[in-house]
Amino acid sequence: MLEALKAEVCKANLDLVKHGLVIFTWGNVSAIDRESGLIVIKPSGVDYSDMQPSDMVVVNLDGEVVDGILRPSSDTATHLEIYKAFPDVGGIVHTHSTYATAWAQAGLDIPNIGTTHADYFHHDIPCTNAMTEEQMGEYEKQTGTTIVEYFCSNEINPSHTPAVLVRNHGPFAWGKDCHEAVHNAVVLEQVAKMAHISLQINPALAMNKLLIEKHYVRKHGKDAYYGQN
Amino acid sequence: MLEALKAEVCKANLDLVKHGLVIFTWGNVSAIDRESGLIVIKPSGVDYSDMQPSDMVVVNLDGEVVDGILRPSSDTATHLEIYKAFPDVGGIVHTHSTYATAWAQAGLDIPNIGTTHADYFHHDIPCTNAMTEEQMGEYEKQTGTTIVEYFCSNEINPSHTPAVLVRNHGPFAWGKDCHEAVHNAVVLEQVAKMAHISLQINPALAMNKLLIEKHYVRKHGKDAYYGQN
Amino acid sequence: MLEALKAEVCKANLDLVKHGLVIFTWGNVSAIDRESGLIVIKPSGVDYSDMQPSDMVVVNLDGEVVDGILRPSSDTATHLEIYKAFPDVGGIVHTHSTYATAWAQAGLDIPNIGTTHADYFHHDIPCTNAMTEEQMGEYEKQTGTTIVEYFCSNEINPSHTPAVLVRNHGPFAWGKDCHEAVHNAVVLEQVAKMAHISLQINPALAMNKLLIEKHYVRKHGKDAYYGQN
Amino acid sequence: MLEALKAEVCKANLDLVKHGLVIFTWGNVSAIDRESGLIVIKPSGVDYSDMQPSDMVVVNLDGEVVDGILRPSSDTATHLEIYKAFPDVGGIVHTHSTYATAWAQAGLDIPNIGTTHADYFHHDIPCTNAMTEEQMGEYEKQTGTTIVEYFCSNEINPSHTPAVLVRNHGPFAWGKDCHEAVHNAVVLEQVAKMAHISLQINPALAMNKLLIEKHYVRKHGKDAYYGQN
Repeated sequence: MLEALKAEVCKANLDLVKHGLVIFTWGNVSAIDRESGLIVIKPSGVDYSDMQPSDMVVVNLDGEVVDGILRPSSDTATHLEIYKAFPDVGGIVHTHSTYATAWAQAGLDIPNIGTTHADYFHHDIPCTNAMTEEQMGEYEKQTGTTIVEYFCSNEINPSHTPAVLVRNHGPFAWGKDCHEAVHNAVVLEQVAKMAHISLQINPALAMNKLLIEKHYVRKHGKDAYYGQN
Repeated sequence: MLEALKAEVCKANLDLVKHGLVIFTWGNVSAIDRESGLIVIKPSGVDYSDMQPSDMVVVNLDGEVVDGILRPSSDTATHLEIYKAFPDVGGIVHTHSTYATAWAQAGLDIPNIGTTHADYFHHDIPCTNAMTEEQMGEYEKQTGTTIVEYFCSNEINPSHTPAVLVRNHGPFAWGKDCHEAVHNAVVLEQVAKMAHISLQINPALAMNKLLIEKHYVRKHGKDAYYGQN
Repeated sequence: MLEALKAEVCKANLDLVKHGLVIFTWGNVSAIDRESGLIVIKPSGVDYSDMQPSDMVVVNLDGEVVDGILRPSSDTATHLEIYKAFPDVGGIVHTHSTYATAWAQAGLDIPNIGTTHADYFHHDIPCTNAMTEEQMGEYEKQTGTTIVEYFCSNEINPSHTPAVLVRNHGPFAWGKDCHEAVHNAVVLEQVAKMAHISLQINPALAMNKLLIEKHYVRKHGKDAYYGQN
Repeated sequence: MLEALKAEVCKANLDLVKHGLVIFTWGNVSAIDRESGLIVIKPSGVDYSDMQPSDMVVVNLDGEVVDGILRPSSDTATHLEIYKAFPDVGGIVHTHSTYATAWAQAGLDIPNIGTTHADYFHHDIPCTNAMTEEQMGEYEKQTGTTIVEYFCSNEINPSHTPAVLVRNHGPFAWGKDCHEAVHNAVVLEQVAKMAHISLQINPALAMNKLLIEKHYVRKHGKDAYYGQN
């Protein structure tokens, strides 16, 4: 079932290691097949060195396993909430990458202070609110709803700012497919590192709003002129 | 004698190099065979590039060499105190890994400010008290008793928080075997690095206590649901 | 057309990856053939892993493509302004390298506080002024004129200080050919990193002006005695 | 002439690259043959990738080339002053390694705040005084005399603290031979990095003087018990 997507998701998980975003089993990638409404996701706690496409688990949007012999990632319920709320998302990545996680632990948005950020993310990378005791019951599901509510109530377009920091936890990034989600997770980590250094050099810095707009639009606007398309 | 354990301890020592935790001869791993009460430990000052399982030294809990031609690690007496006081410990690692050592030099506990920390360590990573002139006589043994006393007097469970910082010196980590001890030493270094960055970004941060509890319990509690078991 | 220069520019682009200055497609190198007034530049948004000399694009000083089937780098207009204004420049590099970009985001010059800097750059590495709304129209061209005007109005010799930070964006470096431009981009990143660390250690530091002069002159002055020439 | 020492010095220079202490041609290693009073040193500005033992240059203590076709390192005169003043030094290393250079640029001693430092260096790593205009005349020679005078007037034993930071420039390290000098240069860089991080975590830290003494003596004192000898 969904063999091509399993291969893609397996490769995307291994790409996290290649890009230095995860150690041990600290990360997971999923992708959705929008026609069938089925999600392919990494199994929980399996070593990257042994991982095969056939180890990937297929779940439906209710979180029920429909294919695969391993247990799906413990963060599956978070992925599902994002897929249900954001219809343009095709792939999701979660990591504990060093700098993005450090910002999540610091409980602060990553400010949009440079064109590297603006080329990929229109908004600051938002850091979600602290979870309450009630939300701890269905923890992973509530992590997802916390993300979704934050984007909705702050009117942030998830396609224009495809990443979030879960407070005290770490980053989630997404894209039109799982390959783009991994790409955005790599950019997020680099943007998090550079913002940290910039703020040490000059704690009082501020980004030119005109430049943010220019860079986002030259790459993503209707008259985009970056790349070969 | 204890050939399988010697191979395991030798491999664990080499894993420290692979994970970037040690340079030159700066680190040591040991494991205990609880049945016989014998400890296998790295020899002192031997290059990792040449190390063989047959170079490992076997000592008893009194520190007497019972097998091996090389001198055991100069930190052997510290390892022995930990094995004697904490009966669930099966393997111990000592390194001078960069960020954990920097916290030890700073003389501060690594605060539990994120789920990466809470997934592995229930408590802040404690930094021991400064040693007194009296304790310098049997320095390595007293390093061990300083660690043990700190955990006991502060009621920290060494199985739930399997690592410590020896003030002005560096980290010790442990586990049910030497492989798990190395794993915990790698996590400790990553946690130390992220806490440092987080505190630079936001010196006033504080961890959500509910989240600490949730993450520790979902991985280690009686109803743990992380991984395949 | 210009096959040798295409090979050189292609290699210089790949050297950016080798030196860790770029990920994905975040960087571009060009070189000029001063006799014909033609510039060879990297195509826009093409993966480094696939790049061939034949992918390089040739443009004239008006920015018209005269050879090549791909679209040239979106930063081409910036390169052209530098070539037109600084006649001794033979090659130009643009990257988003971590520390140089962090200084650009911080909006501050990199101060000349050590001999590593002074060996290559006579002046502080200047950070350009913020761009105005008018300049956003022909954005990449205006990025170039902003650089040129800054050097002219501040009387900085571009051959003695062959690099600049575009505010909120990132570094450009140059040299007598594209190989030297890459070399200077590597030095710039290292100088940016060390200045950042030095200022954290001692925010009140100041460079000995005598030493700056001595080091620049022993390598570049008329009686230079560094190297084999 | 001195073929074995040339091979050793060439290898030690390449080891600087292997340990990540130098890029391009930024570093040099020398060794002295005390019997003949001749020094073998790296040639100036030659790429590490091409370097052969036969490229090494032999100079006498007056700095005259007695063997070799290349020009010796531009820092030769500094090495000579150290060899002349410190008779137990057999090898010297100069680098621009990132963290040690950042401390030199900051103009501060690296404080002895941990056992990693104390295992190798008895004293803080001293940072020399700023050079005066008079000293710029014979710049490299005066760099050496500045180092020597600092150790003498501050009564620092160069065998117990085998490294120095030249203010606004970078580190020199030495040892009984050039292999030990490289080893000490690697330790110095690690110690510089950890001290930087520790001081960011806790700017008010202070080292336990008893522990410094204990660690230096257990490795270097007359009853040393570290290693296999």
